[in-house]
Amino acid sequence: MNEEQLLALLQGVKEGSVSLDHALNELKSLPYEDLGFAKVDHHRTIRNGFPEVVFCQGKTEEQIVQILMHLAKYDNNILATRATPHDFARVKEAIPEADYSELARVITIIKKPIPMRGKVLILSAGTADLPVAEEAAMTADIMGCQVERLYDVGVAGIHRLLDNTDRFKDAQVLIVVAGMEGALASVVGGLTDKPIIAVPTSIGYGASFGGLAALLAMLNSCAAGIGVVNIDNGFGAGVLANSIIKAIHGAKYDE
Amino acid sequence: MNEEQLLALLQGVKEGSVSLDHALNELKSLPYEDLGFAKVDHHRTIRNGFPEVVFCQGKTEEQIVQILMHLAKYDNNILATRATPHDFARVKEAIPEADYSELARVITIIKKPIPMRGKVLILSAGTADLPVAEEAAMTADIMGCQVERLYDVGVAGIHRLLDNTDRFKDAQVLIVVAGMEGALASVVGGLTDKPIIAVPTSIGYGASFGGLAALLAMLNSCAAGIGVVNIDNGFGAGVLANSIIKAIHGAKYDE
Amino acid sequence: MNEEQLLALLQGVKEGSVSLDHALNELKSLPYEDLGFAKVDHHRTIRNGFPEVVFCQGKTEEQIVQILMHLAKYDNNILATRATPHDFARVKEAIPEADYSELARVITIIKKPIPMRGKVLILSAGTADLPVAEEAAMTADIMGCQVERLYDVGVAGIHRLLDNTDRFKDAQVLIVVAGMEGALASVVGGLTDKPIIAVPTSIGYGASFGGLAALLAMLNSCAAGIGVVNIDNGFGAGVLANSIIKAIHGAKYDE
Amino acid sequence: MNEEQLLALLQGVKEGSVSLDHALNELKSLPYEDLGFAKVDHHRTIRNGFPEVVFCQGKTEEQIVQILMHLAKYDNNILATRATPHDFARVKEAIPEADYSELARVITIIKKPIPMRGKVLILSAGTADLPVAEEAAMTADIMGCQVERLYDVGVAGIHRLLDNTDRFKDAQVLIVVAGMEGALASVVGGLTDKPIIAVPTSIGYGASFGGLAALLAMLNSCAAGIGVVNIDNGFGAGVLANSIIKAIHGAKYDE
Amino acid sequence: MNEEQLLALLQGVKEGSVSLDHALNELKSLPYEDLGFAKVDHHRTIRNGFPEVVFCQGKTEEQIVQILMHLAKYDNNILATRATPHDFARVKEAIPEADYSELARVITIIKKPIPMRGKVLILSAGTADLPVAEEAAMTADIMGCQVERLYDVGVAGIHRLLDNTDRFKDAQVLIVVAGMEGALASVVGGLTDKPIIAVPTSIGYGASFGGLAALLAMLNSCAAGIGVVNIDNGFGAGVLANSIIKAIHGAKYDE
Amino acid sequence: MNEEQLLALLQGVKEGSVSLDHALNELKSLPYEDLGFAKVDHHRTIRNGFPEVVFCQGKTEEQIVQILMHLAKYDNNILATRATPHDFARVKEAIPEADYSELARVITIIKKPIPMRGKVLILSAGTADLPVAEEAAMTADIMGCQVERLYDVGVAGIHRLLDNTDRFKDAQVLIVVAGMEGALASVVGGLTDKPIIAVPTSIGYGASFGGLAALLAMLNSCAAGIGVVNIDNGFGAGVLANSIIKAIHGAKYDE
Amino acid sequence: MNEEQLLALLQGVKEGSVSLDHALNELKSLPYEDLGFAKVDHHRTIRNGFPEVVFCQGKTEEQIVQILMHLAKYDNNILATRATPHDFARVKEAIPEADYSELARVITIIKKPIPMRGKVLILSAGTADLPVAEEAAMTADIMGCQVERLYDVGVAGIHRLLDNTDRFKDAQVLIVVAGMEGALASVVGGLTDKPIIAVPTSIGYGASFGGLAALLAMLNSCAAGIGVVNIDNGFGAGVLANSIIKAIHGAKYDE
Amino acid sequence: MNEEQLLALLQGVKEGSVSLDHALNELKSLPYEDLGFAKVDHHRTIRNGFPEVVFCQGKTEEQIVQILMHLAKYDNNILATRATPHDFARVKEAIPEADYSELARVITIIKKPIPMRGKVLILSAGTADLPVAEEAAMTADIMGCQVERLYDVGVAGIHRLLDNTDRFKDAQVLIVVAGMEGALASVVGGLTDKPIIAVPTSIGYGASFGGLAALLAMLNSCAAGIGVVNIDNGFGAGVLANSIIKAIHGAKYDE
Repeated sequence: MNEEQLLALLQGVKEGSVSLDHALNELKSLPYEDLGFAKVDHHRTIRNGFPEVVFCQGKTEEQIVQILMHLAKYDNNILATRATPHDFARVKEAIPEADYSELARVITIIKKPIPMRGKVLILSAGTADLPVAEEAAMTADIMGCQVERLYDVGVAGIHRLLDNTDRFKDAQVLIVVAGMEGALASVVGGLTDKPIIAVPTSIGYGASFGGLAALLAMLNSCAAGIGVVNIDNGFGAGVLANSIIKAIHGAKYDE
Repeated sequence: MNEEQLLALLQGVKEGSVSLDHALNELKSLPYEDLGFAKVDHHRTIRNGFPEVVFCQGKTEEQIVQILMHLAKYDNNILATRATPHDFARVKEAIPEADYSELARVITIIKKPIPMRGKVLILSAGTADLPVAEEAAMTADIMGCQVERLYDVGVAGIHRLLDNTDRFKDAQVLIVVAGMEGALASVVGGLTDKPIIAVPTSIGYGASFGGLAALLAMLNSCAAGIGVVNIDNGFGAGVLANSIIKAIHGAKYDE
Repeated sequence: MNEEQLLALLQGVKEGSVSLDHALNELKSLPYEDLGFAKVDHHRTIRNGFPEVVFCQGKTEEQIVQILMHLAKYDNNILATRATPHDFARVKEAIPEADYSELARVITIIKKPIPMRGKVLILSAGTADLPVAEEAAMTADIMGCQVERLYDVGVAGIHRLLDNTDRFKDAQVLIVVAGMEGALASVVGGLTDKPIIAVPTSIGYGASFGGLAALLAMLNSCAAGIGVVNIDNGFGAGVLANSIIKAIHGAKYDE
Repeated sequence: MNEEQLLALLQGVKEGSVSLDHALNELKSLPYEDLGFAKVDHHRTIRNGFPEVVFCQGKTEEQIVQILMHLAKYDNNILATRATPHDFARVKEAIPEADYSELARVITIIKKPIPMRGKVLILSAGTADLPVAEEAAMTADIMGCQVERLYDVGVAGIHRLLDNTDRFKDAQVLIVVAGMEGALASVVGGLTDKPIIAVPTSIGYGASFGGLAALLAMLNSCAAGIGVVNIDNGFGAGVLANSIIKAIHGAKYDE
Repeated sequence: MNEEQLLALLQGVKEGSVSLDHALNELKSLPYEDLGFAKVDHHRTIRNGFPEVVFCQGKTEEQIVQILMHLAKYDNNILATRATPHDFARVKEAIPEADYSELARVITIIKKPIPMRGKVLILSAGTADLPVAEEAAMTADIMGCQVERLYDVGVAGIHRLLDNTDRFKDAQVLIVVAGMEGALASVVGGLTDKPIIAVPTSIGYGASFGGLAALLAMLNSCAAGIGVVNIDNGFGAGVLANSIIKAIHGAKYDE
Repeated sequence: MNEEQLLALLQGVKEGSVSLDHALNELKSLPYEDLGFAKVDHHRTIRNGFPEVVFCQGKTEEQIVQILMHLAKYDNNILATRATPHDFARVKEAIPEADYSELARVITIIKKPIPMRGKVLILSAGTADLPVAEEAAMTADIMGCQVERLYDVGVAGIHRLLDNTDRFKDAQVLIVVAGMEGALASVVGGLTDKPIIAVPTSIGYGASFGGLAALLAMLNSCAAGIGVVNIDNGFGAGVLANSIIKAIHGAKYDE
Repeated sequence: MNEEQLLALLQGVKEGSVSLDHALNELKSLPYEDLGFAKVDHHRTIRNGFPEVVFCQGKTEEQIVQILMHLAKYDNNILATRATPHDFARVKEAIPEADYSELARVITIIKKPIPMRGKVLILSAGTADLPVAEEAAMTADIMGCQVERLYDVGVAGIHRLLDNTDRFKDAQVLIVVAGMEGALASVVGGLTDKPIIAVPTSIGYGASFGGLAALLAMLNSCAAGIGVVNIDNGFGAGVLANSIIKAIHGAKYDE
Repeated sequence: MNEEQLLALLQGVKEGSVSLDHALNELKSLPYEDLGFAKVDHHRTIRNGFPEVVFCQGKTEEQIVQILMHLAKYDNNILATRATPHDFARVKEAIPEADYSELARVITIIKKPIPMRGKVLILSAGTADLPVAEEAAMTADIMGCQVERLYDVGVAGIHRLLDNTDRFKDAQVLIVVAGMEGALASVVGGLTDKPIIAVPTSIGYGASFGGLAALLAMLNSCAAGIGVVNIDNGFGAGVLANSIIKAIHGAKYDE
């Protein structure tokens, strides 16, 4: 039941064409969402500044193409994460305007311009962490955040990081991507008091246990106030960064 | 080496009283911090809007008293977390202006007014989660965030939460505190796109494994963009919330 | 020793052709099963309302075909779980009446009509959970439970679930299938007091640890009274649902 | 907003004393629960056949007494789990009609008669599992289930169990409580096709890892269709058993 | 139904006072155990060469005394493990012939002589492992095994072990007790091909994880053919050693 | 230094051709093994009743063939475990007398007759456990143990096991192979007091965690006196069984 | 800013061509590294006696070739670890002087002679541990350590180790490589008081949990003073060994 | 058999008073240790530069006193770790020259001067890590290493560490002690190529899991060549540091 329908019902009550009993029953069993959230999906797109995200891993190429073609009918930008080059090849045939970042394993389909605001600085410890860092970067970017990159500044060569701390100044949010022992989050946390989002990666072997070592390290950071997301979850970090940027600047699509 | 000393050195070079070789050596081994960060601790207080936090757990009452008395000499506000009533009794004798929240297990010593800005909404799932929620609340509060509380809205009675979603509107950051299965974070994450900080608690038994169940649930939340801190780490959540508020409003002590 | 043989023995005792000593010895060493459970497999079929289930995973196509052909000689319905399309292709050649659900990865061979009774509602959090949800659905179905489906109602969009709570009314048992953080079980548990069977799935990555996160969450649900089965064990959930339905309505094959 | 208030609002619309705009706004922001679930707590009590349960562990004696005194004002039965003898001594002073089972660590306050229906059979493996078994028993009992007990039938002496399988016949639900290796659940699962709820206990040492061994065993049971609850969660098993009994017989307080 | 009752039934059939139908029914539902295992507990004592073992941990002194007094009425030897000195003090008052090993934390009550046979050699790595080693020793001893001890031969001083390998010759079974890294089991396994029972202990700290390190090491021993029991389970090792000795020499109480 | 060399040295001392100093030094630095264990490998073969075992997993076909050809030069029997059909095809070309069990994944090369003694009964819970059970069987067999098999007697159908307990009588050692929840070991342990070797298998999925569930269950068995080997380690179980049989009957190759 | 530039600045100050203010600012904002570590990479090469290491795992052949060709332009030796034969085939085409150890999975490119000093003894438990042992060996070797090998001395045949303890004498550092239960580290630790580096390997199956068993064993060694590196981290062990050798003898490239 | 006895035997052979056969037998069965390691404990003391270490945890005060009094009879220095103030009070009564560090929980009894050589730098991240750091310091000190301390240089305030990197220069070995996320080890590892020993501590809570987070982080350090010891094992770090110092300078007691 949308607003119009609700109004019609009340009008009917007022005019006597709808009995009190009937209106009462109608309203009592009224589905929650229909009152105000009837266009919840629309709303959600607007609220999040983004319509729909497709997580490609575990889907067949065929499924990915069909989902994206369905979404591409609407005037929204689309982000598809964890897509392989093969996935993209098939998508490209069907949706020529689709773009792909092999490093980030991300397909993007831009249907309307993205008003940019805010600044997110993404740091990564090693080159092997780049796919996750880039997934975060492209997620934040398509949501309208300006993204700066400071890559390969792992703590084993601390001076590369220290030489670049002036780049922290302009950033409003920092995303720190690191595998192995994940120490970069703590060091960055000690160098700034801006909001930090830490992304452990599964880079490592042996007692890394698939990213567990980095995850635990980040959760136990001696630098207080670091928010941690799931292992390899660059997408989640990008979304959280955008929600902070939005708290500062407002949603990009709102006006 | 502070700025004066550096100037003196350069003056000496200029005047010839210091040889080039000597100056070169002096500068080459110059401790990094002395150049610009010599008053780093002072700086840190200003940057973070907070001087020093004392983690009382594992310290003797005597140690706590001594540390707090030392810190209380300066004109800074003080927060001591994980303090027992016995700890506070001893502190109160030595520092009469100290206050205590038994629920939050937190001692506060307010030496100067706290300019408030921003709004943090703290949700907790059950009453057993309150100590952690209050630790977060008092941490954010003493850092200058206005704190709202929405407690006992666990997902087993989802309507208590849904009846209060309008309270999300004013908040700029949400902190979600939950033990057991930690599902509250995901549900809240689906109801808002504001920045969410999730705090798993150790409330539970058996296969809760000391909060591991809630921690893993929050890290795997199907609602994207939730930053997770360590189990029972209300303090860390408060600090992160403040860093986001500060990104929006600026530091409170800066002017 | 089956019933006839036992009767013959007693007859012999009665008639004096069998000595008391001999009968005593015969009965003392009588294998337990031979008394009443000699056709235990038959019995079991009748008791469970189902003859035999084949778990295909880890078996060669050849083995699966041979087992199913052997079972297909009898007048029982057959369920083969975790079957690949290749498995089915081979089975179909040998047993033309075999059917297959690619989504549920399940082969069914229906040899006699299934009297239906009871109603099981199966909820799933995300589309990736469907294979497990469908395995549960088809298991319950072939055992004679009417199955309703309420899919894709994960807690990140809680209104989709809330809009459909009226569908809980007719159900006698609910099966909740969810991966990632498994929060759906807790939310459903707070909305109904009907028996709930929770199935954690291995959907997720990183700190999902193959479904461990969802499993722990479901075991620690703040909504009391949820029975949990193994990760991805749709089959087990279907069997448990049927055992509850049977407690309400009786076995379908019994009359 | 309860039904009366809603009716009044509609009446106002009808009579013209309430404008359409005002009514629309009122209804749009109407808290979900107020429409139909306004007396949700009341409802919940009626639905579950039980008003409120108090989990005493981690609460002070004082807190327990206050909560129970508050609840005891209403005409509902009360169950307080994980209560120590000291807890009870204090409660008894304040609420003389309170009863206590030291074995089950459970306080009960019976304010109105409990109509009994259904039959739950509770099996336990060893004497050390009795506290958990009795917590399940007393929970099911106060909810109106007739409880039968079959204790100390661990699989190391399988004949004690086999001698009593005829007791399975009358039961509608079985609860199996076992620590150490938790094998009893699987054996019972092979002997009946009635609904089985398995409760792992923390009884054991070393590689029992606080009940993890029994928990994993029960989740991996080769007998399909066993619902598992958290370690030591006798209460949860009792609630689930009651929900199944209620599906068979209906709620006891409903008429 | 015991043998007499069975005989009476058959007699009734023979004499015609019992109908075939009735006898058939009686026998079909005959509890398994009643046929031949009616005195199963008695049997068990004889079979195992031991009547009853009491695991004291988690029991009150009062409970222990009552159980032991009950058991002490019969002419069987008794072993009570994990007993504290306080437990023993109470037991000694009630049962003056009770003995105690403080090191092994074991109470023994010897009511009849123990015929000894076989030889078990118990090795322990460090002095901290002695309680577990002695629990194994006293268990094997009271079951009639001659026990030799070779203590404090941890692998960090391998020569202490190598100097004593001649003591392996007479042993028929070896029990190896070790905490920390549990390496002694592997080394002993390489020096003999006699049956080896390995007992990991919880001695250690940090990454010993309560004996997990030793347990995993023993399970992964590069010396094939080592049977491992639970952490700190000296009793279980003693029982297994006795079962092997009995396979060689026969039960001691059998004649 | 072998016995002859030692004798020669002493002879030299006696005859004065070797100085005391030189002899003293020679003896002090004498490698341990050279005194008595010089032919340790030979000895080991004799002691273990078996020359050499090859673990094929992780080796190339080429490596396996070369190792086996090298070993096949000597007059010893050979056991190669975890061999694939492809491995065997290559081995068969090179060593025509090699045999293979596809089920056990074991290659055997019999060069001399195996005197048999003792009796080992191998039980398995399910058909999926057969590869491990057969690895144990073939290991025990080639070491000279008579092997009996009692397969597919999992506890979900306890009567299949109970009907066959008379087969326990002749066995001197029992090996119990089970995956999933591993309950069979406990049940068997309650039915006999003969030595039991338990082998957890990795059969299962989800919360089986690669055999961990079965492993923990077996270690925590409520039936005392079960020796557990590594997950899937049929070979180790066979070796331990043989060491017990040898303790009873003596080594087969010794005479 | 390198040394020359710094000197120029100071010269300018001395000569008056650079104002004090300008120099002060220049120096204050001077990137840390530029003061003394400007050629940090160069320095690092010199300090570590090694320019750059490439970890090939997870890189494409193309990436490996490009990185190595870039590095090969300079006059430094190069080590590429975890390289497959296919990787090497491609590298060999591009860089003919590249060498490969298939066992160690290591590519080396020697551009200048390596002055050798020190002695590292590498022990391995089994042949399956050789790839890790050889990775350690080749790492230490290319850094200028003389490497001795003592392979296949696992504790199951302790005499092979004991016969070779005289080889410990010349070594300055010992590296112990072992999988499965990792007991070799403890035994070696008891035989020498030289620095020991322990490398757990992932060799094993089942409860080895990918090397966890060996890792925990080594960390809990009863022989004090063993430094442990990550599972399978032969490279790390070689680097640590070299750092100790360098502490004794100095860096090889320093003069 | 010590050297004199061996000489006497050889003398007997030479003189003919001992037959060749007798000497041969004597030598063949000669316990290994008696040849060269007869005074192994003495030797060990000399080799390790330390007589005996007592691990007090888990021992009664009485046991500690007795062990120390026994050891104090000899002219060796003594180190007792994990001693409580109460332990020391009792020891002090019995051995007046005993000293105690409450911080390090270490009792020392110095009976002869300690020749000092080498230099060990011990870094700790936080003040809570000091007990472990001091245990390492006092262990290294009593073994003759000069110990420098650089405490409270955790990575959250990286400049405190960077300001003191010049102190690395004189050190020959670095011990890094850190709890929580253990990142200090990686940062130090990137700043020096001297041997580094990392000690994770159990400082932390929640997802620190008793030091597991720090342990995993150190094992996965992106700075190659760090040797890790057990959680809280300051003693082990001190011993390893001394073994490296000894490799550089030789044992202190050797001359």
